[in-house]
Amino acid sequence: MIKVGIVGGTGYTGVELLRLLSVHPDVELTAITSRKEDGLPVADMFPSLRGKVDLAFSAPDKVDLSKCDVVFFATPHGVAMAQAPALLAAGVKVIDLAADFRLKNQETFEQWYKIPHTCPELLEEAVYGLPELNREAVKNARLIANPGCYPTTMQLGFVPLLKANLIDASALIADAKSGVSGAGRKAEISTLFSESSDNFKAYGVSGHRHTPETVAQLQRFTGLPVNLIFTPHLVPMIRGMHSTLYARLTTDISNEALQELFETTYKDAAFVDVMPFGSHPETRSTRGSNTLRLALHRPNNGNTVVILVVQDNLVKGASGQAVQCMNLMFGLEETLGLQQVALLP
Amino acid sequence: MIKVGIVGGTGYTGVELLRLLSVHPDVELTAITSRKEDGLPVADMFPSLRGKVDLAFSAPDKVDLSKCDVVFFATPHGVAMAQAPALLAAGVKVIDLAADFRLKNQETFEQWYKIPHTCPELLEEAVYGLPELNREAVKNARLIANPGCYPTTMQLGFVPLLKANLIDASALIADAKSGVSGAGRKAEISTLFSESSDNFKAYGVSGHRHTPETVAQLQRFTGLPVNLIFTPHLVPMIRGMHSTLYARLTTDISNEALQELFETTYKDAAFVDVMPFGSHPETRSTRGSNTLRLALHRPNNGNTVVILVVQDNLVKGASGQAVQCMNLMFGLEETLGLQQVALLP
Amino acid sequence: MIKVGIVGGTGYTGVELLRLLSVHPDVELTAITSRKEDGLPVADMFPSLRGKVDLAFSAPDKVDLSKCDVVFFATPHGVAMAQAPALLAAGVKVIDLAADFRLKNQETFEQWYKIPHTCPELLEEAVYGLPELNREAVKNARLIANPGCYPTTMQLGFVPLLKANLIDASALIADAKSGVSGAGRKAEISTLFSESSDNFKAYGVSGHRHTPETVAQLQRFTGLPVNLIFTPHLVPMIRGMHSTLYARLTTDISNEALQELFETTYKDAAFVDVMPFGSHPETRSTRGSNTLRLALHRPNNGNTVVILVVQDNLVKGASGQAVQCMNLMFGLEETLGLQQVALLP
Amino acid sequence: MIKVGIVGGTGYTGVELLRLLSVHPDVELTAITSRKEDGLPVADMFPSLRGKVDLAFSAPDKVDLSKCDVVFFATPHGVAMAQAPALLAAGVKVIDLAADFRLKNQETFEQWYKIPHTCPELLEEAVYGLPELNREAVKNARLIANPGCYPTTMQLGFVPLLKANLIDASALIADAKSGVSGAGRKAEISTLFSESSDNFKAYGVSGHRHTPETVAQLQRFTGLPVNLIFTPHLVPMIRGMHSTLYARLTTDISNEALQELFETTYKDAAFVDVMPFGSHPETRSTRGSNTLRLALHRPNNGNTVVILVVQDNLVKGASGQAVQCMNLMFGLEETLGLQQVALLP
Repeated sequence: MIKVGIVGGTGYTGVELLRLLSVHPDVELTAITSRKEDGLPVADMFPSLRGKVDLAFSAPDKVDLSKCDVVFFATPHGVAMAQAPALLAAGVKVIDLAADFRLKNQETFEQWYKIPHTCPELLEEAVYGLPELNREAVKNARLIANPGCYPTTMQLGFVPLLKANLIDASALIADAKSGVSGAGRKAEISTLFSESSDNFKAYGVSGHRHTPETVAQLQRFTGLPVNLIFTPHLVPMIRGMHSTLYARLTTDISNEALQELFETTYKDAAFVDVMPFGSHPETRSTRGSNTLRLALHRPNNGNTVVILVVQDNLVKGASGQAVQCMNLMFGLEETLGLQQVALLP
Repeated sequence: MIKVGIVGGTGYTGVELLRLLSVHPDVELTAITSRKEDGLPVADMFPSLRGKVDLAFSAPDKVDLSKCDVVFFATPHGVAMAQAPALLAAGVKVIDLAADFRLKNQETFEQWYKIPHTCPELLEEAVYGLPELNREAVKNARLIANPGCYPTTMQLGFVPLLKANLIDASALIADAKSGVSGAGRKAEISTLFSESSDNFKAYGVSGHRHTPETVAQLQRFTGLPVNLIFTPHLVPMIRGMHSTLYARLTTDISNEALQELFETTYKDAAFVDVMPFGSHPETRSTRGSNTLRLALHRPNNGNTVVILVVQDNLVKGASGQAVQCMNLMFGLEETLGLQQVALLP
Repeated sequence: MIKVGIVGGTGYTGVELLRLLSVHPDVELTAITSRKEDGLPVADMFPSLRGKVDLAFSAPDKVDLSKCDVVFFATPHGVAMAQAPALLAAGVKVIDLAADFRLKNQETFEQWYKIPHTCPELLEEAVYGLPELNREAVKNARLIANPGCYPTTMQLGFVPLLKANLIDASALIADAKSGVSGAGRKAEISTLFSESSDNFKAYGVSGHRHTPETVAQLQRFTGLPVNLIFTPHLVPMIRGMHSTLYARLTTDISNEALQELFETTYKDAAFVDVMPFGSHPETRSTRGSNTLRLALHRPNNGNTVVILVVQDNLVKGASGQAVQCMNLMFGLEETLGLQQVALLP
Repeated sequence: MIKVGIVGGTGYTGVELLRLLSVHPDVELTAITSRKEDGLPVADMFPSLRGKVDLAFSAPDKVDLSKCDVVFFATPHGVAMAQAPALLAAGVKVIDLAADFRLKNQETFEQWYKIPHTCPELLEEAVYGLPELNREAVKNARLIANPGCYPTTMQLGFVPLLKANLIDASALIADAKSGVSGAGRKAEISTLFSESSDNFKAYGVSGHRHTPETVAQLQRFTGLPVNLIFTPHLVPMIRGMHSTLYARLTTDISNEALQELFETTYKDAAFVDVMPFGSHPETRSTRGSNTLRLALHRPNNGNTVVILVVQDNLVKGASGQAVQCMNLMFGLEETLGLQQVALLP
């Protein structure tokens, strides 16, 4: 059994880790920390876990995480970087669901996240935890930077085309839509039910942290300079993410060949479902599951390809992906404990 | 492996059976019938099942259900009664998720459901599939009448008090609220998103089919005549049911004793969670899980006891309960394949 | 033109007052105070008001409210009582949308609201602003205590029966459901979209401030001691309130006579719509309008009468009712500026 | 008073016309037809209209629409073309909310709408009812083709840039999102609450009828060939539309000049609100109102301009726009009866 610790279990990625790990056959939940909720049984905060998780939250200083085999950080940016060096030194693997290790470039990190990076020496070693594009590195990693939710959809949609050198890398557009849980479990007026329900809006159009992360990753797959317009929107639903990606083809290629390219790219990816050409994937088809679905379109058979990508932002976009990485890091079957069927309706 | 057939797999209880049974370790899905969708892969209608269910719908006359070990009827009222006799004769167990076998009294059935009963000779044998109140009978049953969603909450809330003879059986009030999926997957204006969202209303206040079902079952637990006011309402949510039950105490009893009564009654019930006295259970704490949660209140410490009961209407209120019965009928662990953690948020 | 000031314009009752008053033909909006938002144009916070309201918020000390004809307090409990005496002394009428003047009994107020009352000498004079039960007093009032949202529905539903001495006053049950906007525009986790959407729960079952308010008002209409069980629930919708009221008849009376009683009681009430016997009013039929609708039921023609009452909690349940009072206090047509048709769908 | 008839009052554009016209000071509602609902009081179907509209639906053959001054067609495509010629001949003005007269080219119409056009001789005369781009023609029209909801947002967003010849007309992208009421009040599974809630998807990506309509109108404002990628999506909200428009600048121009271009274009447009550069308009800021709001963005100060456009699809996107046209056709103030403030929250 893998001994697992979770730092910061009171947010949505934390409770989602608990949902997945509490029924994972090879995991023993060992500790869940929360400074504010020390002593509170986890199931008192999240009654969905009554009878499933017996642990209580512990204050960070009351628990020795170095006895864990792996520690997940489901914390705000900046927490993992403070604790990762000691844990790694003690032989504990670390998976950070925040952004501390997503950007290789320290300066870019500090510019977008407005905090100094306290262990830049780990940036190079950290492995970007998107197994479909990075599986071998994940297997061998000590330290995982779990990708952002939006970047996961953008990379899995654009990379096959970029790698095959079929599109204009300087004219990528991602019009993306997220459920409200992406904003986290924080007391804020803007994500109140009465503010977000029966409403739709864009946000962060002038600049969002997921742009530099995505561009840096996409750049790995092409020699041409990547330019990306990324427009996130807020959808009145709890879970779910839908990215509508637009790319301009630079080569004459048939729809069949495009479809085959994607099917070939993901033929061994248990969690990527390439739907038939022209399909319209729905976010609810992934609700609660670790599967990402995508489908290709070619409006008017012109030179623009449209890729529709959906996932559950809390599973494949966060906690499920982290567990997928854990499975690989410990030599387990990649899909272990992640076979939940989506909840439809 | 238990060979399972499903008659009528295109509705919400059907797809929910598929979600649960596709990952049940002892089940082999053998056939799913649909007159209208013959030949259509199930996963084309429900993309959540892509990669999970490979079956296609079959027209009823193209499949031999007598080779199954058990057949679930996820159909409108009247279908199961037409096919059950032949299946039972062939040694197949039958679980009907509709109302055909819920009422022992043929006349009452015909009055409320407006169709003649075609096999009244089976009414006596049919077992009402509420394991928490009826476990031994379920184990030995060939034919299960799976309870209605509302009646499940009302019975599990009222029965401990009735059995202990603590309340006035002639003055029961159940103010119940259901998510919209309870209305089924039928093309109707009244349950369109634009009609049901951002709205709340009562319906069927002058009379609902779940009243006679509930009264007949409650009557089994008391010698006094049961009278029930049942007021159902429609909530703008997909899944979830909340019944607020009011009963008048006829005996002086402490809150502690009331609480202990419920805890004792359900101490062996894996799927009934008696929360601490004064709790407010939320429907989402049961979303996608087979657990029913309840909590007791005593406003102003007066003579009225209020019982709050929540469940997922499609799981404990329908398909999960049916699978729970199947487990018992085949001598399996009652909880097998039903350990899903609720999806929160 | 009536010069109107609003204290506390940043909450939902505040912005709703602005929506109504900005198009009221006899009103001139003069000042809107907010300590935190001093200088911010109101339409920057609420873009729905762009082009409709040109005012900016003012810090309380920068504006002289004594020049207004009437001041509305759309503030937390405790604010109006601090400022009302000086305003009244200056000849300004005051309408408090909070609870400061709703309870005549100082002790009861302090017990439920946990703050000392700073001007108990005004409690006797304050008029409870429910025009349908209190029209003449409202017309002559200097100081209005605008009723709570739940109490409005409970009183308009129970009072005709109590006045006619038809029901058991000691066994009233109100199972009430409110949209989330009733919780106000406050940064809190429990009313986040991701917590409240696709969910249903009761709250405050052991005791809610609207119980003593309602009981005290109901008591005015009967010589018998009133006892009320009040169970509020939270519905995943923005606006709307549905109270399901249960009362036990003590007299033999026909359904026709019951219906006539209500129709007669409210025949001059422009904002109370008595629907045909057996109707199921929907909250959305009142969305954005000042109309309250109700309908009577008599399950099984027994001795329990069920009254279904719906309203928009922010209009008839708060700001619309306040404007209705203002109209009466200034000798205007009661319905002036309040003729909006509900937004359906 | 203008005598108004409505053909097809049982859909969402019909009931929205009733909401607006029932309080329009210069309108007398004369007749509402419905073949199926003959004799039913309108307020029985739409209780929001109780006390506001006393009319009953009439079968088409029982009412003489030629006595009206204007007739609105809130019907499926194909109905207006059958009745318009006779009404026009009788001197009645006609406003069609469907697509019968939106496309000047008969062949294009028949290709997209799959029905023969029965009065192509009126196509030339019909005026496209988008007053902001067409006001003088609307004033003088006998026959109005009310624009589609999506096309309204796309035109008001793209036209200023096209007219000024600032963008590449051959590379327009509109990523658009609509509330579910846009699908109409029809009994269909795909728009049930349980299918559409807590879900997000694209639809019609391979081709949508609003593309040829929009392209034809945009083409009027540029000599260059227009090419448009249009991707509609369904949002789990009742009302509201958000179009995210992408255009490639072909000229070097400052953000200030872009902003000024839009402000100048719409300075006399009472219903177009150009928000400050970089704003994020929300659909709810237009809920129930006839205002369309838009804001400009320039990601990374590059050569792509992003225009965010919101409106209420049933008001400015349908019935409100139709009433706006009526006002102009009858020489009334353009804003008469259309001053409703949006319902927020």
